Amino acid sequence: MSETESKETAAADTAVHGTVATGYEDVREEFAAVLANPDEGPDHAAQLTVHVRGEKVVDLWGGPHIGPDSLTPVYSSTKGAAHLVVALLVQDGVLDLDRAVASYWPEFGVHGKDRLTLRDLLAHRAGVVGADTGFSAEEVVDDRLMAERLAAQRPYWRPGTAFGYHAYVIGALTGEVVRRVTGRTIQEWYEERVRAPFGLDFYLGEPDGATSRFLETLPMTPTPAQQAEQAANPSGAHSLGGIAFNLNGKEPTDLVATANSAASRKASPASYGGIASARGLAGMYLAVLGDGPGSAGPLLTPDTLAEFGQVHSEGIDLVGGQRSAFGLGFQAFSEEKYPVLGHGSIGHSGAAGSVAFADPRNRIAYGYNRRRFAYPGGAAPENVHLVRAVVRAASA
Amino acid sequence: MSETESKETAAADTAVHGTVATGYEDVREEFAAVLANPDEGPDHAAQLTVHVRGEKVVDLWGGPHIGPDSLTPVYSSTKGAAHLVVALLVQDGVLDLDRAVASYWPEFGVHGKDRLTLRDLLAHRAGVVGADTGFSAEEVVDDRLMAERLAAQRPYWRPGTAFGYHAYVIGALTGEVVRRVTGRTIQEWYEERVRAPFGLDFYLGEPDGATSRFLETLPMTPTPAQQAEQAANPSGAHSLGGIAFNLNGKEPTDLVATANSAASRKASPASYGGIASARGLAGMYLAVLGDGPGSAGPLLTPDTLAEFGQVHSEGIDLVGGQRSAFGLGFQAFSEEKYPVLGHGSIGHSGAAGSVAFADPRNRIAYGYNRRRFAYPGGAAPENVHLVRAVVRAASA
Amino acid sequence: MSETESKETAAADTAVHGTVATGYEDVREEFAAVLANPDEGPDHAAQLTVHVRGEKVVDLWGGPHIGPDSLTPVYSSTKGAAHLVVALLVQDGVLDLDRAVASYWPEFGVHGKDRLTLRDLLAHRAGVVGADTGFSAEEVVDDRLMAERLAAQRPYWRPGTAFGYHAYVIGALTGEVVRRVTGRTIQEWYEERVRAPFGLDFYLGEPDGATSRFLETLPMTPTPAQQAEQAANPSGAHSLGGIAFNLNGKEPTDLVATANSAASRKASPASYGGIASARGLAGMYLAVLGDGPGSAGPLLTPDTLAEFGQVHSEGIDLVGGQRSAFGLGFQAFSEEKYPVLGHGSIGHSGAAGSVAFADPRNRIAYGYNRRRFAYPGGAAPENVHLVRAVVRAASA
Repeated sequence: MSETESKETAAADTAVHGTVATGYEDVREEFAAVLANPDEGPDHAAQLTVHVRGEKVVDLWGGPHIGPDSLTPVYSSTKGAAHLVVALLVQDGVLDLDRAVASYWPEFGVHGKDRLTLRDLLAHRAGVVGADTGFSAEEVVDDRLMAERLAAQRPYWRPGTAFGYHAYVIGALTGEVVRRVTGRTIQEWYEERVRAPFGLDFYLGEPDGATSRFLETLPMTPTPAQQAEQAANPSGAHSLGGIAFNLNGKEPTDLVATANSAASRKASPASYGGIASARGLAGMYLAVLGDGPGSAGPLLTPDTLAEFGQVHSEGIDLVGGQRSAFGLGFQAFSEEKYPVLGHGSIGHSGAAGSVAFADPRNRIAYGYNRRRFAYPGGAAPENVHLVRAVVRAASA
Repeated sequence: MSETESKETAAADTAVHGTVATGYEDVREEFAAVLANPDEGPDHAAQLTVHVRGEKVVDLWGGPHIGPDSLTPVYSSTKGAAHLVVALLVQDGVLDLDRAVASYWPEFGVHGKDRLTLRDLLAHRAGVVGADTGFSAEEVVDDRLMAERLAAQRPYWRPGTAFGYHAYVIGALTGEVVRRVTGRTIQEWYEERVRAPFGLDFYLGEPDGATSRFLETLPMTPTPAQQAEQAANPSGAHSLGGIAFNLNGKEPTDLVATANSAASRKASPASYGGIASARGLAGMYLAVLGDGPGSAGPLLTPDTLAEFGQVHSEGIDLVGGQRSAFGLGFQAFSEEKYPVLGHGSIGHSGAAGSVAFADPRNRIAYGYNRRRFAYPGGAAPENVHLVRAVVRAASA
Repeated sequence: MSETESKETAAADTAVHGTVATGYEDVREEFAAVLANPDEGPDHAAQLTVHVRGEKVVDLWGGPHIGPDSLTPVYSSTKGAAHLVVALLVQDGVLDLDRAVASYWPEFGVHGKDRLTLRDLLAHRAGVVGADTGFSAEEVVDDRLMAERLAAQRPYWRPGTAFGYHAYVIGALTGEVVRRVTGRTIQEWYEERVRAPFGLDFYLGEPDGATSRFLETLPMTPTPAQQAEQAANPSGAHSLGGIAFNLNGKEPTDLVATANSAASRKASPASYGGIASARGLAGMYLAVLGDGPGSAGPLLTPDTLAEFGQVHSEGIDLVGGQRSAFGLGFQAFSEEKYPVLGHGSIGHSGAAGSVAFADPRNRIAYGYNRRRFAYPGGAAPENVHLVRAVVRAASA
């Protein structure tokens, strides 16, 4: 691998560290532009790791306090890890996508949810995006307590008529299915089947000794224009979005404070509680593709990968009010945010801006992580440029 | 109830009359801005009544000739009254949402409509938004004649593939089901079960003696910019929109003239023929919530309210060509126009600009009425500001 | 028929030739504006023929080298011819829209496609828009070879959850059904049942002797602003759009070169390989309506026309990423591009800009053809103005 040493910029705190392979210099330039962006506020930092056809072609980091092994909350990028577990259990024949959730979990089969399948659940079609009176602070970091509440909940839309992002709860729902069937949690399966074998710095449950590498998410610092944009279209605490983000109860959730908390990092709710480095994020998807050094083969067979990457929900997301696209438990990035990617890419983004995916057609494993919560939430906008630069270089 | 006397503005004909509770002064300011808008044309007038947690917090009116008891056509806000009747009959076990319409009304079961359920019908999914050769002027004000024509009509889209606003006919269709099952009209049921017990100034069928309080709708006065916008995207008389608004036959409907006519006011087609004051509109939804003084309990149980407010159709409305969202017979305002509202709000707007709803999560009953037809038709744009101001005050 | 001689403009190569009926002068002006557009590049040429209520009211052509009988590739306007054949076979009872494709074609019934009906296929819902490793140059002009590959393909979205434009392949798929059932190709049926009886200059398979009348499509000449627009949102060769336009294999398709080639013109893939004049395009839809001189009645009964024109797919097209609407094999123009048209119009546009349709409510048969590939591809933008001018004149 021919590498180019990254240049240091004048101001020390915006220096780009790490390496890119020859041909990937544009990716480094795009990454440098993120760090140099004056709108990002103090202590902004980021990491980016990319593998193409098994070669680590990008491995960059920069910003105060951050190193290549620093761990931050990755929010919903956690869902990628959780649903990799579900994919493995489906692949093993332990779970059946077309069985009713209620056949695994009888309490779930009320209020018209009796015929909802595991497939529907994974495709964000169940409609139980939150609970009528909200979750307590204790519940919101406990998948099992959330699952108990959600089983009794009437769905917010008629099953079959719509889909919407189950932001805080999809992993609690699929995790409860996993627990009922196997007696073990999604977090335990992830550790055993995925994290430990590949030595990934992507944890569902902060391990002892990792605290020294942990960096808290920094809160969003919207510009005045961004603040005005947010104020122009307020949504209510009792709207579907308010319910999905647990703003509708007596203890409304502060997402950043929650994800930074020791309780969340320890319990790691399967929808949002993971912590990782970009190396960890990219490494997991490298294992999915089976392109890693000395890899014993891909975690997912081509058939499983195709099934979980197949578009199952597409159109206006009823929770977010904008267009989105989901496979099974994963976001269908090529149909939504990144049309330069190959169809059937599986991945997930996180609220603070992280993005991670595997593109099996272009054989790309990508992990991006950042410390300051990006406006307006979800996949940070810079990923559009970073992903394009990666694909351009990979196709050259 | 602590009240603030409304200020009178300099020009007498834009004076705001009535009262708001302490804390709701911003609502009065927003209402005053509507009356003061020079684009609205002469004799513009409006009414607004809001109850929050059982307290009447807003009761305003203004403009030439109008008083708090003045009645105007409320167009499709009528659908809220009609479908409150359907909800009551479902609640009583008289109607079954999941039974085929054709099982109640055999003539309907042709051209692929045999399996359409009452639920589909209420969710604007039936596809019979009008009739191929249009309705005559006599038919368009007679629900039963329209129903007869619609039973024989091939749906304009494949049942199950889309939904679209059944602007003039949904009440004729659901009303025919009511009539077949109970032998009585939706208008008769409304009078007996809803209007009379609560003494509401919201009529499906103008009563004797009310003519002195009736004010005709004034025609739309679009600005030059609005006229240009309309001209830029003309739609044809035989388009789906043209069919839904009965422009496709030998006697194309002039909606304002029709709604103002004695024939419409007397027969009150269940889709658009009601007349009301804002007090009447808000009062009906107050009765739905059961928050009224001395109320014997809500008209709808929490279960019925949740079922009728559950989102059943969402996405691009095939008739209007824009995004919309429906529960069962009601508009799902929180998913569409007013994201500050609580999910599960039920209500309806009318073509000239009226808006009325119940928000069970925030316990708001809201009625807005206006005399001049608002551009571009449907919920008048000022409701965005009025509703936000109400929710802000209610949450303070 | 009262006719107005078309005026010749100063520069010979933008002269408008042909005639319009009295009242259709605006259509000629709009057509002249197309020819006079300096952005179109050299040798731009176009044809337009329109029949209203059986009268040929517009018959225009202009630009270098072109005459009224010149033939050019019409790209996906070909799909209109192919699916007219399917409509005829359904009308005759030979094909059943609600039978599973796999019951006609067993190899198709794999990877979850076993229950897909012919109706689903025609509505662009099958999800097999291309093949995972792309088609070879030989395959892409051979419907039968493409069909063989597509039968084995896993659909790119979960059947029933979405629809998307099967740009290069829908005719190969429906054509294979026709061949399995009847032993003859869709192209053979078209020649026998449609083209020959009506003497249409619209060929699926270039006949001997037509070469002298053939004009190649000229490549797109985007303006700098259009180039920037294209560059701003690149999509990848392995995206769903890339797969649908066969950019994902070893021999990516150059659509214009392919359609211009002798191989494509001879084999005439049923999705895009037809060649025609505007007279031929309009003439076919005139035969559909049965409004032609000495016509023995319409090709399609009102029932068949209504069924094929009924909206079956509507919303965001997963391949194009934009809103579109399809009946069965035809585009539903009135719901998408041309809201001035009557609901239930059936037609199709082609990549280089051609547009052809029948509007049964307004009794219009329309054919537009152009030589230079229009930006951004698909129905050329000028048709918005041409169609409006036609409907305005037809309604006067």
